[in-house]
Parts: sequence; C-alpha cells; structure tokens
Amino acid sequence: MRFDLLLTDCHAATMQGDAPYGVIENAAIGVAGGRIAWIGAAADLPAHEATETESLGGRWVTPGLIDCHTHLVFGGNRSAEFEARLKGATYQEIAAAGGGILSSVRMTREASEEALIAATSKRLRALKRDGVTTVEIKSGYGLDADTETKMLRAARAAGTSEGVAVVTTYLGLHALPAAYKERPDAYVDHVIDTILPRVAAERLANAVDAYVEPIAFSAEQADRFFAAAEALGLKTKLHAEQFSDSGGAQLAARRQSLSADHLEYVGEEGLAALAKSGTVAVLLPGAFLALRETQLPPIDRLRALGIPMALATDCNPGTSPVTSMLAVLNLACVLFRMTPEEALAGATVNGARALGLTDRGTLAVGQRADLAAWDVERPAELTYWLGAPLLHRSYAGGKALI
Amino acid sequence: MRFDLLLTDCHAATMQGDAPYGVIENAAIGVAGGRIAWIGAAADLPAHEATETESLGGRWVTPGLIDCHTHLVFGGNRSAEFEARLKGATYQEIAAAGGGILSSVRMTREASEEALIAATSKRLRALKRDGVTTVEIKSGYGLDADTETKMLRAARAAGTSEGVAVVTTYLGLHALPAAYKERPDAYVDHVIDTILPRVAAERLANAVDAYVEPIAFSAEQADRFFAAAEALGLKTKLHAEQFSDSGGAQLAARRQSLSADHLEYVGEEGLAALAKSGTVAVLLPGAFLALRETQLPPIDRLRALGIPMALATDCNPGTSPVTSMLAVLNLACVLFRMTPEEALAGATVNGARALGLTDRGTLAVGQRADLAAWDVERPAELTYWLGAPLLHRSYAGGKALI
Ligand SMILES: [Zn+2]
Ligand SMILES: [Zn+2]
Repeated sequence: MRFDLLLTDCHAATMQGDAPYGVIENAAIGVAGGRIAWIGAAADLPAHEATETESLGGRWVTPGLIDCHTHLVFGGNRSAEFEARLKGATYQEIAAAGGGILSSVRMTREASEEALIAATSKRLRALKRDGVTTVEIKSGYGLDADTETKMLRAARAAGTSEGVAVVTTYLGLHALPAAYKERPDAYVDHVIDTILPRVAAERLANAVDAYVEPIAFSAEQADRFFAAAEALGLKTKLHAEQFSDSGGAQLAARRQSLSADHLEYVGEEGLAALAKSGTVAVLLPGAFLALRETQLPPIDRLRALGIPMALATDCNPGTSPVTSMLAVLNLACVLFRMTPEEALAGATVNGARALGLTDRGTLAVGQRADLAAWDVERPAELTYWLGAPLLHRSYAGGKALI
Repeated sequence: MRFDLLLTDCHAATMQGDAPYGVIENAAIGVAGGRIAWIGAAADLPAHEATETESLGGRWVTPGLIDCHTHLVFGGNRSAEFEARLKGATYQEIAAAGGGILSSVRMTREASEEALIAATSKRLRALKRDGVTTVEIKSGYGLDADTETKMLRAARAAGTSEGVAVVTTYLGLHALPAAYKERPDAYVDHVIDTILPRVAAERLANAVDAYVEPIAFSAEQADRFFAAAEALGLKTKLHAEQFSDSGGAQLAARRQSLSADHLEYVGEEGLAALAKSGTVAVLLPGAFLALRETQLPPIDRLRALGIPMALATDCNPGTSPVTSMLAVLNLACVLFRMTPEEALAGATVNGARALGLTDRGTLAVGQRADLAAWDVERPAELTYWLGAPLLHRSYAGGKALI
C-alpha cells in the first residue's frame, strides 16, 4: 500500500465497534488522499511505502473533535454585562442599559465582515488547541438578511483561513428584532419569505435552527419555518427544552431534525419521540454551568432509550463564553455524570451525527483523516483534567493542523 | 532613567490604589534589574533610555498571576478512578481496588525524583499558559520523610526549570499512612519528631500545612504540629472547613496562619476570628466544582468582614485536576458570584498575601517585574471566558517567560 502519511507507535480510540472506545492498542494509521487508508494493529500492517512516517511515542489518537453547536460569529463580547451582573445589576437594568442578546445583535450588525472573520478565526484557534477539526457555526445575531448572510459568509471564511471544517446553520428564529416587537408571526413570515430564500439561494447554510421557548418562539412558529426550510432542501436543528418543556423535542422528532439541543427540561413524551426519530440529543454543559442551571438533562433516560448524546461548547457571548471542548468534556462528566467514553463519543461520532456527517467522527478506512494525537495515558484522561494542554498534534484531511 | 525593558501602548490593572482594578489607562511600565522601576500614564514618562522597548498594541497588563494553593507534585494520576466512579463504582469499591489518596501516595513513593520533576514541569507549563508566574506547591503524598523531601525538592527543581517562582509548603498532616492506622497521634509525633525537623534542616519549605476535618486530623493535632513548625521558623497554612465546621478557621486565626483554605463550611465564629487575625481566605472553586459541592463559601460574609479572598487551582489528582487559573477565575465568578475584580485580586494581590509575599501581586515601583500582558479589551474579560487563550505574553522578574 502507498500512504501519504503513516502514524506509528500509538493507540487508537476509534469510537466504533464493540470494544470500549473502539480501542486498538499498538496501532498504526495510514493516510492517503486525505482519508484513512488503513488502520489496525501495527503488527498487521501490510507491505507499504509512506511519503512521511510519524512515530507518536505511545500517544493516543482519537478522531478530530467535533464541536457541533456554536454561535462563534458575533461582534464585541458581553464581559461588561457579565461584570455588571456580578456587581448586582438586575436583568432589567442591564436591558435598560442596552445589554442582553440585542446588544450582540447591535454589535454584530455594526461589525464589518472582516472584523467578524478575524474574531471568529481567533475563537477557532482556541478550539483548535483542543484538537477540534470540525465546527458547526450558527448565525442568529443579525435578525436581518444582510447581517445573517454576513455572519454565514464570515463563518465559512474563518474556517477556510484556519483549516477547520465549518458547517453553517442559519439560526432564523433566535430572538425577535425590536422592529417586530409583539409581532412574532410577522417576523416568522419575514424570515420565511425573505431571509431564508436568500440564505438558500446563496447556499450559505447546511441547516436551519430555531429557539423554541416561551421567551422566544413557539413550536408552531418553528414548525412553519422548518417546513419552508425543508422545501428548500435544508436540514433542521432545534434549541429545545432549555428552560421549559415546550414541545421542542416532539417537533424535532416529527421533523426528523438532525438534533435537539439543550434538553434540560425535556419530558417523557419528548424523549419517546426523540428515541423513535433517531434525532441526536446535543448537551451543552457550558451553558448549564454559566447559567447555574440546577435541572440536569435526563442523562439516565437518554442512555436507557439509546438516544445518541453529543456535546458542544455552545460558544456564545451571553450564556456560554466557552471555547474549549476539553473543558466541555470535563463538565459533561463532572456535572452531567456522563462516562468518559460517552463524553468522547459526544465530541466525535455523535457530534458528526448531529451534523448529518458520516465521513468523520470515527477512525475507520474511508473516513476523513481528521485526527487528534494526545499526550495522555488513557482516553479517560481527556475528560479528567480541566485546563490542561493535552493535544500533541492534530490533522485535518490528513494535513497537520497543529 | 534607564530601563532594561520598557512596555508601552498598554493599559495597566495595577491591583492597588483606589480606582477599580487600580487601572492606569494608556500606561507605560519601565523595568530595571528585574523590578518595576517606573509605572504611570505614558504621557508622564520621564526622559529615559531603554535597552528594549515593546509596544503592546493597546493590550492590558496585570501582575503575573499567583496560584497560591496547589498539590502539583504527584506520581501517576487518578483518571482511571475518575472513570470507574462515573461508571458506578462506589468509594468502597475504589478504596478496595487500591484507589483514593493512598493510591497517589503509592504512585508518588514509586516515582523517581526525575519523573516527579518532569510531571510537575508539565503542569507548570500548563499554568504558565495563563500568565502564572508564582506557584505554591505542597508536599503531602509521601507521608514519610524520604518521599516528602523528594516532593519538595522536585517542586523547586521544576520551578527552576520552568522559570516560575515556586513557594513550597510541607503538608505534614494530609492523610494517615497505613502503618499508623488508628494511631493518628503517633503519626503526628512522628511528623513532629522526624519529618518536620528534616524538612526544616534542609530548608525545603517556606511553610507547613495541615488538613483539619473529621476524616483527617483534629484542630488539636494540627495545633501541635503548627507549634513545632513555628518553633523552627516556618509559617503555617491550613486546609479548613472544607466539609464541616471543625474549628480550623479559629486555629488558623489563633496561629496567625498565612491562610485558611476552602472554608465552604466556616461558621460565624471562625469568620470573626479570621477577620481579626488578617489571615487570608483561599477559595478553591475547582475542588468545589469537581466535588459537586453545593455549600458555597460565605462570600458575602467574607466581603462584609473585609477578609482578603485569594483564589487557587488546588491542582491535585483526586479532587481538583485543574491546571488553569483563568478557569478558576471564571468559576469563582460563575459559581461563587465573586466580582471580576475580586477574582483578579484573588489571583494577584491576595494570592501574594496568602504566601506572605509583599514583593509581587501588584504593579508598583519596586515590585518584582512579574507581568502578564493579555489580549483583552477590559480586565473583566479575564474572568468571562472559559478555555480561551488570552495571554499575549508574560514576564517573570523582567524576563520574557512566554
Ligand atoms: Zn445555542
Ligand atoms: Zn489542597
């Protein structure tokens, strides 16, 4: 066989097959044409020529991590609001001072596309430090066609400049712009009639997303939006049951959405619907922490029902200013009591599934050669430390990324 | 004036004086002989010559961060135990399988001094990524004279190799070695008669520490140990009221200990004693998080009583595998509701005070030139993000560290 790159002297957590973590000890991985061309026990490696061979000194290799839910494109940040709140300001005072999500909307509208690309690239560099190779990025701080499309273009441009695969989502129903105050249905119409067709025509998004909560949009409004998106060939994802059981999970299941995200307050009905549809549950412990939420997502029920669990940073300026997937893995274990193997699956195979991607998230022949090599003695160490620089190096499509 | 190094085009959070964060906007900082020789508004900079001038592009400069409570020297790690517990193993099963603190004792005894230096250096490199320039490191996983002294030597050697100022603490009363089962007083005698004199004679520690809890040692036992340590010229620090109000704070106050650490369960009597003695309260949100503690340290009372609050990682393999001070600052705000300014003071001026150091922790003429330059728009951003690479560069004693 002929390899562009051969990785030797490593252990592989393939995240597929029956063994815990899909472990192959003393493994070798051959890469050709940006894909995994061979993987197995080094002792079984067939005759080969390799352009480049790298010995990993006994390190562990996993699939490159996938951050399947982020709001990585935004203007400014909300650290001043964070500080004001800790100094005792009420939500009302902060809103009166122009804070909250609409301040991110204002700063994102004001930012140039170049400034957004630069800020997003910086956040992607932070994620790359933890072996991330694929990132989903949502729009949603524009609430008008020009800004939403600017955000989606900036997301893709930042991915290109950082060598990270970026999957974009048009978050059409995120918040209600001031101009549509108390007319949410009129805004939904505007999204469906004007913004969505433009996003689709310019092929700027892989999927759409909506935020279903009493404080945001109803399941019926999201359903209308999803129907329009599907008609244009777009997949759907949903912010569901973060603060209340609002029927989001049932909607996501009925629409066969790729994922239903948050889910702290999902009830048995929603769980049953998700279990039937195969929709992925995306859990976001960074937001859970930052909001000091006490209602845990029903991990035991998700586990019992076999609903795939993915994990993501939910990086956003308001409720999860988190730019580390390893921190998320730690929080998933510490706060949600997920096992280290469940957490790692959440950042690999199930993260891919939450994006509708089947060509990554596991280590197997034919998969994209998105790999992370770690300075750890066992996979569980990836979830045990908080704030440790564990990445040795990473590869995206077989090319060294870090 | 003559400077070895002049930093320009920056804002300084000096952490002293009356202004919030002690801010000097549009500042310049002159360094000579490893100390701050001049600091003020750039407009007031006197005539000078500088060997090297660095423009910081409008970034913020703070004192180098201080991590004033760590157990950074240990053999192995406990990620396998972390995983077993998440898979449902009970504490009894883990203890029966040789886990728990005594497994760290075993692995630390087995580790060579060189291996401990290498492992500790790696953890110091992690801390350095967040602008840390001074680290306290405790012994305590030896429980015998050879291993305790080996740990303290390894701590200092790692500091030297990484260019970080390391302050060592002999944690004499941490856990009861198996050989002294049910004879804690005999162990305290052994510590006082044998290990402590050797630590003092070899000048391996700046202070001693003890762990006062029903599951560990009593305040009376710690008091005996502290009296012996003081007689040898050593300062004292105390792990106090982490799980119960056990009189640790009162002991620390009576002994004028540098700090009382943890304090989740401190009562009014202990608080009053601390307020009178000037002992620093060291708060450890990483352990609070990892243990899923729900009892918050009494921040409002500490604040009202004017007790200085410091923050630290408590990096240790069992209850706080945390190697990021920025993560600690974020957790202190999110979980403990400290203000960003209190958190930053906890990692600078109050961290220094918890170590009995007056030559660092603030930016002022005559202080060590331990500096961190940050890629942020305001100091609060240092506490707002989780997992972001915010450090631009750092200096220890005026020399570039990162
Ligand atoms: Zn979100
Ligand atoms: Zn400790």
